[in-house]
Amino acid sequence: MSFELTILGSSAALPTSKRFPTAHLLHAGERFFLIDCGEGTQIRLRQYGLNPSRIHHILISHLHGDHVFGLFGLLSTLGMMGRKVPLHLYGPQSLEAFSDSYSKFFGSLPFDLEFKSPSEDDDFIFENDKLTIEAIPLKHRIPAYGYLFREKMKPLNVRKEQIEAMGLGRADLVKVKRGDDFVDDSGERIPNSQLTLPPFHRRSYAYLSDTQFDPELAKKVKGVDLLFHEATFLERDKKLADQTQHSTAAEAATLAKLAGVKKLLIGHFSSRYKEPLLFETEAREFFEDTTGVNDGDIYSIPLERLSGE
Amino acid sequence: MSFELTILGSSAALPTSKRFPTAHLLHAGERFFLIDCGEGTQIRLRQYGLNPSRIHHILISHLHGDHVFGLFGLLSTLGMMGRKVPLHLYGPQSLEAFSDSYSKFFGSLPFDLEFKSPSEDDDFIFENDKLTIEAIPLKHRIPAYGYLFREKMKPLNVRKEQIEAMGLGRADLVKVKRGDDFVDDSGERIPNSQLTLPPFHRRSYAYLSDTQFDPELAKKVKGVDLLFHEATFLERDKKLADQTQHSTAAEAATLAKLAGVKKLLIGHFSSRYKEPLLFETEAREFFEDTTGVNDGDIYSIPLERLSGE
Repeated sequence: MSFELTILGSSAALPTSKRFPTAHLLHAGERFFLIDCGEGTQIRLRQYGLNPSRIHHILISHLHGDHVFGLFGLLSTLGMMGRKVPLHLYGPQSLEAFSDSYSKFFGSLPFDLEFKSPSEDDDFIFENDKLTIEAIPLKHRIPAYGYLFREKMKPLNVRKEQIEAMGLGRADLVKVKRGDDFVDDSGERIPNSQLTLPPFHRRSYAYLSDTQFDPELAKKVKGVDLLFHEATFLERDKKLADQTQHSTAAEAATLAKLAGVKKLLIGHFSSRYKEPLLFETEAREFFEDTTGVNDGDIYSIPLERLSGE
Repeated sequence: MSFELTILGSSAALPTSKRFPTAHLLHAGERFFLIDCGEGTQIRLRQYGLNPSRIHHILISHLHGDHVFGLFGLLSTLGMMGRKVPLHLYGPQSLEAFSDSYSKFFGSLPFDLEFKSPSEDDDFIFENDKLTIEAIPLKHRIPAYGYLFREKMKPLNVRKEQIEAMGLGRADLVKVKRGDDFVDDSGERIPNSQLTLPPFHRRSYAYLSDTQFDPELAKKVKGVDLLFHEATFLERDKKLADQTQHSTAAEAATLAKLAGVKKLLIGHFSSRYKEPLLFETEAREFFEDTTGVNDGDIYSIPLERLSGE
């Protein structure tokens, strides 16, 4: 089962000829989640051979144009492609009024927009049997949320030969797949690990953009497989980063180190810098496994068992 | 002086990987006029090396998303680039409420938007010393306008040797440049054509999109140098064209023939057709000098005198 991130746009506020404004597509839990929707998102989807109709969930970080100006175009296109099923839209409360204004100017859509904003009582903005999405409040000039996607524990795969040898019934099998030990007729306890294969690692992706450096965020994204953290500026422009409540590459990497993530992606690069490699160079002094993303990049996390057989 | 059209987007409602939604940039009268502003217009401007800050006039045909979804992104970018001078926005009345909604969701712009809608009393929506722009009502599902750009007559260039030989004064010269004959001290009338070079041809460009076929439009764009007429469908889908109030390639070419234009450009091709060459083939049966446009195409009309020296 795929857990794959496609970068649709990697620029900051001003797009460049090669970088579209921010949009990420995560294929996880057999669904496609669009995270932010900068101008041209639907064009990138076409260019990368991704069918927009497969998207049922759009998560918007905040209502700055470079994260949302592609939304109307995508909604319009989904309507013209004949969409009837609801589209789920998540983001700060201000997003609802904006998305509602679509119909005022451009007519009603042939499908429902189901809006949900993160609440203080419940961190989980989405949950199904395969994964959860947690909204993470960010520190930016307007209300903004990051999103943490984490797979749920899958039922354990049993060791067939053992199960057969012991003659487990159906009810026992369900318990064993859930992680219980097995107690046989003689009262002997067989540890679950002897009956099942090691569980799968629960893959995770966290998206933190836009935000100033906030060490508290490290607790929220502790140990994730893949962290995207915005890096709008280089450390030499730290003043600008502070003024605009953005992060530098060094800060993004420091956060990754604090959180002990496996891999860091940085992007949302200001168009003022003509050499994006400088971001990676700066970040890697603090966190080695850092990659500066480009439009069209694909990052895949393989499905692996927690320990070797 | 340049009279040059750049195609920024050539698709119809649904963009493709190579065709962005509709936008044209006309460089005429030493100004840049943006005509329609589909999603990604600002990205195409970057990709084609065109500075968005040089645009002071944006003309929108109608309020369907594929002609206007790029407006907010462009406005936002112009603001971030430090624009202070007003931006002139032209289009149907519904455009004003839409552009006003920008500030409600995304904050105020650091420059004024000066809006003007075509009125029934005055065809000319813009006029300065170099050119006029005439708004042309189209037949579409919602209020829509085409735009006709036409250079004004330039002051005539005098034949220096003649002028010197006859010893014309400053006041006489002004009159001669305006086209008057010259009457010398003896009462002899020297025809203006002996004193001046032939006048320049007044270059013109007409943009008609979106519209159903309407022979009345031919009168409006009679003899223009360059006509862009939408051709969303092929004749085999004439029913669809009628239902949606769009034109076929054959209809666009018929209009061009009726109007006796010099050259026809067609575009706004529906993404249902995988071979855009079919549009040219169909159109050329009715009007030979037809070109199907692609994003990035440039069409230049040279400055020429009306007759040879």
